[in-house]
Amino acid sequence: MSFNTFGKIFRFTTWGESHGPAIGCIVDGCPPNIAISQKDIQFDMNRRRPGKSKFTSQRKESDKVEILSGTFQGKTTGTPISMIIYNEDAKSRDYETIKNKFRPGHADYSYFLKYGIRDYRGGGRQSARETAARVAAGAIARVALKKLLGKRYKVTGAVIQLGLLGCKKDKWNEKEIRKNPFFCPDKEAIKLWEKYLLAVRKAGSSCGAVIELRASGIPSGLGAPIYSKLDSDLASGLMSINAVKGVNIGAGMNAAILSGEENSDEIINIKGKTKFKSNKAGGILGGISSGQEIIASFAVKPTSSILSSRETINKKGKNTKISVKGRHDPCVGIRAVPIGEAMMNCVLLDHYLLNRAQCG
Amino acid sequence: MSFNTFGKIFRFTTWGESHGPAIGCIVDGCPPNIAISQKDIQFDMNRRRPGKSKFTSQRKESDKVEILSGTFQGKTTGTPISMIIYNEDAKSRDYETIKNKFRPGHADYSYFLKYGIRDYRGGGRQSARETAARVAAGAIARVALKKLLGKRYKVTGAVIQLGLLGCKKDKWNEKEIRKNPFFCPDKEAIKLWEKYLLAVRKAGSSCGAVIELRASGIPSGLGAPIYSKLDSDLASGLMSINAVKGVNIGAGMNAAILSGEENSDEIINIKGKTKFKSNKAGGILGGISSGQEIIASFAVKPTSSILSSRETINKKGKNTKISVKGRHDPCVGIRAVPIGEAMMNCVLLDHYLLNRAQCG
Amino acid sequence: MSFNTFGKIFRFTTWGESHGPAIGCIVDGCPPNIAISQKDIQFDMNRRRPGKSKFTSQRKESDKVEILSGTFQGKTTGTPISMIIYNEDAKSRDYETIKNKFRPGHADYSYFLKYGIRDYRGGGRQSARETAARVAAGAIARVALKKLLGKRYKVTGAVIQLGLLGCKKDKWNEKEIRKNPFFCPDKEAIKLWEKYLLAVRKAGSSCGAVIELRASGIPSGLGAPIYSKLDSDLASGLMSINAVKGVNIGAGMNAAILSGEENSDEIINIKGKTKFKSNKAGGILGGISSGQEIIASFAVKPTSSILSSRETINKKGKNTKISVKGRHDPCVGIRAVPIGEAMMNCVLLDHYLLNRAQCG
Amino acid sequence: MSFNTFGKIFRFTTWGESHGPAIGCIVDGCPPNIAISQKDIQFDMNRRRPGKSKFTSQRKESDKVEILSGTFQGKTTGTPISMIIYNEDAKSRDYETIKNKFRPGHADYSYFLKYGIRDYRGGGRQSARETAARVAAGAIARVALKKLLGKRYKVTGAVIQLGLLGCKKDKWNEKEIRKNPFFCPDKEAIKLWEKYLLAVRKAGSSCGAVIELRASGIPSGLGAPIYSKLDSDLASGLMSINAVKGVNIGAGMNAAILSGEENSDEIINIKGKTKFKSNKAGGILGGISSGQEIIASFAVKPTSSILSSRETINKKGKNTKISVKGRHDPCVGIRAVPIGEAMMNCVLLDHYLLNRAQCG
Repeated sequence: MSFNTFGKIFRFTTWGESHGPAIGCIVDGCPPNIAISQKDIQFDMNRRRPGKSKFTSQRKESDKVEILSGTFQGKTTGTPISMIIYNEDAKSRDYETIKNKFRPGHADYSYFLKYGIRDYRGGGRQSARETAARVAAGAIARVALKKLLGKRYKVTGAVIQLGLLGCKKDKWNEKEIRKNPFFCPDKEAIKLWEKYLLAVRKAGSSCGAVIELRASGIPSGLGAPIYSKLDSDLASGLMSINAVKGVNIGAGMNAAILSGEENSDEIINIKGKTKFKSNKAGGILGGISSGQEIIASFAVKPTSSILSSRETINKKGKNTKISVKGRHDPCVGIRAVPIGEAMMNCVLLDHYLLNRAQCG
Repeated sequence: MSFNTFGKIFRFTTWGESHGPAIGCIVDGCPPNIAISQKDIQFDMNRRRPGKSKFTSQRKESDKVEILSGTFQGKTTGTPISMIIYNEDAKSRDYETIKNKFRPGHADYSYFLKYGIRDYRGGGRQSARETAARVAAGAIARVALKKLLGKRYKVTGAVIQLGLLGCKKDKWNEKEIRKNPFFCPDKEAIKLWEKYLLAVRKAGSSCGAVIELRASGIPSGLGAPIYSKLDSDLASGLMSINAVKGVNIGAGMNAAILSGEENSDEIINIKGKTKFKSNKAGGILGGISSGQEIIASFAVKPTSSILSSRETINKKGKNTKISVKGRHDPCVGIRAVPIGEAMMNCVLLDHYLLNRAQCG
Repeated sequence: MSFNTFGKIFRFTTWGESHGPAIGCIVDGCPPNIAISQKDIQFDMNRRRPGKSKFTSQRKESDKVEILSGTFQGKTTGTPISMIIYNEDAKSRDYETIKNKFRPGHADYSYFLKYGIRDYRGGGRQSARETAARVAAGAIARVALKKLLGKRYKVTGAVIQLGLLGCKKDKWNEKEIRKNPFFCPDKEAIKLWEKYLLAVRKAGSSCGAVIELRASGIPSGLGAPIYSKLDSDLASGLMSINAVKGVNIGAGMNAAILSGEENSDEIINIKGKTKFKSNKAGGILGGISSGQEIIASFAVKPTSSILSSRETINKKGKNTKISVKGRHDPCVGIRAVPIGEAMMNCVLLDHYLLNRAQCG
Repeated sequence: MSFNTFGKIFRFTTWGESHGPAIGCIVDGCPPNIAISQKDIQFDMNRRRPGKSKFTSQRKESDKVEILSGTFQGKTTGTPISMIIYNEDAKSRDYETIKNKFRPGHADYSYFLKYGIRDYRGGGRQSARETAARVAAGAIARVALKKLLGKRYKVTGAVIQLGLLGCKKDKWNEKEIRKNPFFCPDKEAIKLWEKYLLAVRKAGSSCGAVIELRASGIPSGLGAPIYSKLDSDLASGLMSINAVKGVNIGAGMNAAILSGEENSDEIINIKGKTKFKSNKAGGILGGISSGQEIIASFAVKPTSSILSSRETINKKGKNTKISVKGRHDPCVGIRAVPIGEAMMNCVLLDHYLLNRAQCG
């Protein structure tokens, strides 16, 4: 119900503005006795952190997380875990020139009409800086699920399309994802992507991306029909990420062009184990996990802050032009990978606990 | 939180199985003093009802809704509105042959693993019959919004892709949608669609569809960042519809291939009114409605019940084959149009009320 | 969040008006595979049913519950359980004379001001008839908890004070409670209570009552600090019962006059089992069950519908007088016993599931 | 749903342990454009602060609140307001001696059994220190309601009973409440209270208290039947305060001994205004505010930390004795006054917004 809270049993609430003193979150409902350290969380934070390559925003944030509550002697106590991340490199002056204008594609206009007031510095609350707090929450979910489900549990995200360029998904290589600055799973695609994105950046333009998430080591039975379906909650969680415009589960939008035969994943028993001959469903049937790998993907629109001059209006409703300078990612989709993983981790832990509640 | 409840302020809870005595829903949080009649609701029910053409299931249900509470002298009282729809044409015998087998693509397997028990008759709770109850709830939302926002308020859905066949969206014609059995907005596409679907049906196969929803007459300011974004709640609502695998807002998945210039909708003032030069955002910026038309689309996978023989296992885990007879829609996507509209109506009313709560 | 829903995981939503066609509820989140029959539920319904003695309302309702969904072959399936109870003896004419007046002590006035419309027939939604639906939900909770916790699990309620008359709590006798029409636990008090209530009734007046609930066979660990404390949720649930004005946990309001020594229940180990030397806490410490018997009590105000003429105003704001005839309980507190038990059962099951979610 | 969150639209989530680095809360759903300063909040913090007189704990905390987000240029923006209060005077060594023992009357035992781990330093999360965070949230609610309802809006709490000593409620004097260290409304009672509490303290014992809250300037129509009744939510909120064991609305537990005539508040029109001849209902009818003053009271049990030696067990289940030294309030009820007010402010704002949502 809460506007800034996500989840049912495992819930996190985020707070903070791009250019305020800090941002953070409270994680509530985490199981007790989970060993968790600042390092576990920082690991994911660093993967999302800006300023690491020439392909992301040059804002320099160490994004150091501090845990303020909810752990004792290195373990969760079952009480709320409060985490804080100080803003270090907020350059509010950059935003003086746009404080009375609405940037096209941004939420400046809709925030102003809704609330009658807006913190224009760096986008305030609408800034993707908020997603750092989710990544912190997601790290806790990840650690908890590793303990609850075992080491087989894993969520991996990758950029499978960068603007106009795709990659070969059958070349999916997890080690490769961790090595290149694009989270690209296909080693062969990288060189072209690099050239492409440099060109986009040089042109002062931006491009979108598609991210795919794969989760494995998950038992069947997670997800609660009808309105807490696992895919429904994933869709909600992924669509809540800044700039996301589309969400697919399994075959996703492409399911529309499949035949009934192609789409329904046949089931077989191989040496006493249930297997599926394909995974068009993305591991979810009727909103409940089937035990297969869970696969979701989402599209991130191109960064709205571009150098090109764009038409817009100002607060008084007068026509004007705008060109956004500041420090921006040419493709926000890249840094969306750890954010998508975080949301997947959180949704899965939440549903693990929900299922344990009802079904034991 | 509740598994079978959707919404925050305007909430509905559905209940019932495909082959039980009845299905229904409770609508809670509806504003008082809204004139509403059984006819208003029946109108939408009839649009979803099966058995109306050779392109949908031959199950004969009058789908007559009875209002059991929450209205007095023709008006809502602000108390819960309970509605019931009796099941009339449930042929449970059809399901005897499959009661120990898991139909591929259906939720038989995942329900059984989750709950350890399943009502196999017509799919029980996983049946798309549940969606009739949402349509009843959506009708109330529609009537309430017409009163709150005025007659300009409107939600229209259409099938824009039937299996492999598209249509021309620039030929979108609302009258046409109401006339043909496919909810197709483009008159010219119909003939081909008809032939195609008859062929699919004859082959004992099935196909998917893409449905687009357009809502107009909506003020800016609806939607509450971060985790109750309008698009996030739409995604959750649409993904909760049976067989839906993908959800787009505005440009959706295609946003990934647009440039920053193409994607950001420029804003202009024309004679004192704010206009946008395009609508890639689908009327939602930062999770908040901008006043533009709200556009969402979703993909429905092909009906899983097909005549072709498919491999599967039985309850004992033994390999076996299955061929689903029964009475099924060759394309469940068609009847998803009024269901999608219902979800859109419900989400919009809910957010109208939420926004009124916080922002007055 | 929902106005007419109670609970978090085990949730019920009630609907219906006193003089509408029916009332009912949906129970969501019940664990699957619980054997439950209509009889199990009817047993509790009959204990609440009016018209059984001269000390309760003469309205004749068989209060027969029908289960419409959520069970299959006699067991819960984990899907929503819809139950309906038809209204049989609604005499709406009785209310014609008061339809434009506000009965003092009733919610006529506040409903009208809130909603601008009210169903005056029998109080509409504000009628205590709504509580029948909770009793049905509570019966399911009771059966589920018996299965989950074993036969030791038990909730027993009794009237410990009838208007000005108390009883001896150390004479608490469960068999006696089931025998007398007052749910009085002390055999010796009954005769006087009978005379007293007949006198109250004859005078056209009414009296209040205090009900005590005792729950045993409950493990420690139920209850989730800070805002889902077991006592906090019990207080909310009991206070939501019509006409309840006060709720105590353990020593309750009397805790204020105890010394620190008297109040803190000492803990001892007797033959390997933890025992408490007293139970001032009512079995709840810091919002979490301690394993002791859980004890709560609540006060029900005297029936507001009395024969005596009372001053009031009508819908136009004019001063007038009112004397409520109809058929009313001289002490609504008596029938509140099974209702209180129902709320206790529901809160305990909900917290059992919540605790299982977080702590396994 | 969330364990550490209170409220529906106006929601706050608290975090932090007694001896951790800090405590705090996030306030979500606050209306935008409310002018609010750190001073507004500090005002209430100071009223709850320990160490101000010899009658409260000698722990020295400045309880300085910092606002970290959600305001811009002195006004709320509609986004989450994060507040932090650093712990300054935590003496964890005091707790070394009791780390393996369960203090009777405290939640040591139940926390340990629930979570299998507990932060024993100062009670960790179970400490009443948590209530500082609610007071901060309540201050925001108070300021918002003043803006929304006008200056007539006011909530005043007072201690009306201190252990065995009462006071004359007809001598209720708001100025007096602000002057004496007991929040006592009756000037004449103070001298005796002072002597009494000094004696209790000297004896190393403790005593309980009853606090009464009065709220005025509230429109009719707040409160949403059936399960979000205003009194039900107040009961939940007040019972969630540490050490509270009983909650009354209006006549409360005493309603049981009133006659129907005494209890039902007659309604009259005086010069065009609706008045009630009495207020046994405490301003709430059927869960909805009637426009009268809202009156609630609650009992706080005596401080469980006392010098007297008490029997208990240790973590290994062995019998032992305990005597709690540390720095404790001889009557925690006194400092509960601003906490009760805070909960009342929060509940009222939440219901104001909820009512605006549904009824406009």
